[in-house]
Amino acid sequence: MSSTPVPSEGSADLDGARSRAAKVAMVGAGQLARMTLQAAIDYGIDLHVLAASDDDAAVIAGAAHTLGRPDRYADLAELAGIGEVLTFDHELVSIEHLRTLSRAGVRVRPSAEALQLSCDKLFARRIFDGLGELRVPVPIFSSARTVDDVAAFASDHGWPVILKSRSGGYDGRGVHVLHGIEDARGLLPATRSGDDASWLIEEHLDLAGEFAVLLARNPSGHTAIYPPILTTQEDGICRELTMPADLPASVTAPALRMAESVISGIDATGVCAVEFFWTTDGRVLLNELALRPHNSGHITIEASHTSQFHQHLRGVLDWPLGSTEQVAPAATVNLIGGPTMVDPMRRIRDLQGVPGVHVHLYQKTPRPGRKIGHVTALAETVEVALERARLAAHQLTGD
Amino acid sequence: MSSTPVPSEGSADLDGARSRAAKVAMVGAGQLARMTLQAAIDYGIDLHVLAASDDDAAVIAGAAHTLGRPDRYADLAELAGIGEVLTFDHELVSIEHLRTLSRAGVRVRPSAEALQLSCDKLFARRIFDGLGELRVPVPIFSSARTVDDVAAFASDHGWPVILKSRSGGYDGRGVHVLHGIEDARGLLPATRSGDDASWLIEEHLDLAGEFAVLLARNPSGHTAIYPPILTTQEDGICRELTMPADLPASVTAPALRMAESVISGIDATGVCAVEFFWTTDGRVLLNELALRPHNSGHITIEASHTSQFHQHLRGVLDWPLGSTEQVAPAATVNLIGGPTMVDPMRRIRDLQGVPGVHVHLYQKTPRPGRKIGHVTALAETVEVALERARLAAHQLTGD
Repeated sequence: MSSTPVPSEGSADLDGARSRAAKVAMVGAGQLARMTLQAAIDYGIDLHVLAASDDDAAVIAGAAHTLGRPDRYADLAELAGIGEVLTFDHELVSIEHLRTLSRAGVRVRPSAEALQLSCDKLFARRIFDGLGELRVPVPIFSSARTVDDVAAFASDHGWPVILKSRSGGYDGRGVHVLHGIEDARGLLPATRSGDDASWLIEEHLDLAGEFAVLLARNPSGHTAIYPPILTTQEDGICRELTMPADLPASVTAPALRMAESVISGIDATGVCAVEFFWTTDGRVLLNELALRPHNSGHITIEASHTSQFHQHLRGVLDWPLGSTEQVAPAATVNLIGGPTMVDPMRRIRDLQGVPGVHVHLYQKTPRPGRKIGHVTALAETVEVALERARLAAHQLTGD
Repeated sequence: MSSTPVPSEGSADLDGARSRAAKVAMVGAGQLARMTLQAAIDYGIDLHVLAASDDDAAVIAGAAHTLGRPDRYADLAELAGIGEVLTFDHELVSIEHLRTLSRAGVRVRPSAEALQLSCDKLFARRIFDGLGELRVPVPIFSSARTVDDVAAFASDHGWPVILKSRSGGYDGRGVHVLHGIEDARGLLPATRSGDDASWLIEEHLDLAGEFAVLLARNPSGHTAIYPPILTTQEDGICRELTMPADLPASVTAPALRMAESVISGIDATGVCAVEFFWTTDGRVLLNELALRPHNSGHITIEASHTSQFHQHLRGVLDWPLGSTEQVAPAATVNLIGGPTMVDPMRRIRDLQGVPGVHVHLYQKTPRPGRKIGHVTALAETVEVALERARLAAHQLTGD
């Protein structure tokens, strides 16, 4: 391990002619870091990112960066020494290294302990399930190591069942719908090998809808909560967002309470997205948690007075949080690579001025299933906003 | 002179792994370039700026840059070779060099001819005054070389008179109110020296108000026009903006017509701000013209569906223009350095979440009279927006 990093807060105003409000180090340099950079510019914050490559979305946008790996202690330590706080655009980072950095005095926000909940779905489910007094219902679940574990779960709860990779899955990757034991055989071993379960298995739900509650919290313990955001998934990938979500109060009220309880309970800092299932039989179940800006929060860039990226910076820096009041009804359509998709980088030259539309391109090469941009529209109603966003997305992608 | 620059449009998709919508070269790296960078990131546009120093506001924000001078041909030519279009964050640039670049095939947008109107106030007045059929009334004016010229003008039109430096003046610099001939003696020579008049002299107006009309135009000839923006000046520096402007239709209608006529008449491209005087005797007079994003247009970042920075990029790239529809009533307060001002970079850490407020800091060291940031607020009414923006500005500066 390399030398202990030194947080640089005290020197923020001393090191040269550049005036800055703060210096923030971020692990990861994807589109979340890219949009965080745009917010950092508003506040006069210097953002420094840990990038895997010079072609990462935030690096192309101009973010100051160090090349390195989020699982390498030396790289994390070097990054931590640059900012007065260390935060994240993804959770694929070594929790152990973060614990070490935290012990060395680095302000890791969110903390390693909190971040683990978004890295490890099984661990998170066990924690939420154990938070009895917080009343956090989750889908019926179990760990799964073998084909027999799947069979046992299905015999209790019926087919189909949902098998989820314990960590590393996103955008539908690592999630499988199993309709019978045959579907499990290619995925799990017949007999137990190793100690740790690498799969989470859960009941198949009849969904009335999915939605996310976006919140922010700062180390002083203040919380700001956004109105729920309806998320429309297809093949496990979020395609569309609308805000405000058209949900009954009997759904949103418990979800808002749960979300707030959970992020306070785990002492989270920065922006968090809490994803919920709403079932046709009226249950509101916590699905998972992201402890960073989240795809569902992109709608806040235009729809809210404080975007999730501004709010994340305020949260991790322990600044007072900004207003989460909504500006206007809004809808977001993700631009997702498909087999026939034209690169929106070319199409944007011909994009007609659809009223109320705001385009965000991440400068990522289109690949099937890859989010390469999004379009948000504001309008008098959510329905009109969604029409506008879909029209612009269609013009940009041909899909 | 160095080698002829080669516009790079054709190679935009060929030079490496980075996908981009376009590459734009901008002369200047101040706060306008800084905010243009934020907009460029949304569109996947690579922005490359010509900076005077590594501490320029856009460079600190991460803009790709070349160090150089806007009056040096080699520097302009190098910059022009990087972008598929060449545009500007200020007009303190050699018009002659731009003409040369244009002849060499560089897409200079706006053109050298148009840009000259914002560099040279006397030249501009003569042009507008000569555009008879466009009905562009301007204040009564003349050129002034000597103290006697001032005396002659005042004897025709009365004291006080306004003396303006022909070029280079901004934020109240280069503007003098002369109450009698004694005031002229320190500024102008007694006898003519040199051929060119370096001063514009004009009647003193009793103002009912000042406002700006922001527009955009692309080379295909399409125009987009924003609602008029009321500007409140103090000591020649714009302090506050409100949109929509509370002006009678008898004022806004001719102003919108004039602004559109002028920018079409001079074949402008990109964003233009046309500044108007409204006098107590009901005259609407064109004051001056900026052929680039403009301080008055900062309000559009939040108040309009297409900000002036997005619109400028669309305009100079000949993309379809974006919607200029307004999102909500808005007010902007500029943060201007004063003798007692605290650096807002420090204060932002304690800024309470005023509802609807959006803060923009330029990372410029405060100096008296220097614009170092702005705050925009949205609200149900312009009055409430202005209260909010003033409150946040007060929290940030102590003024």
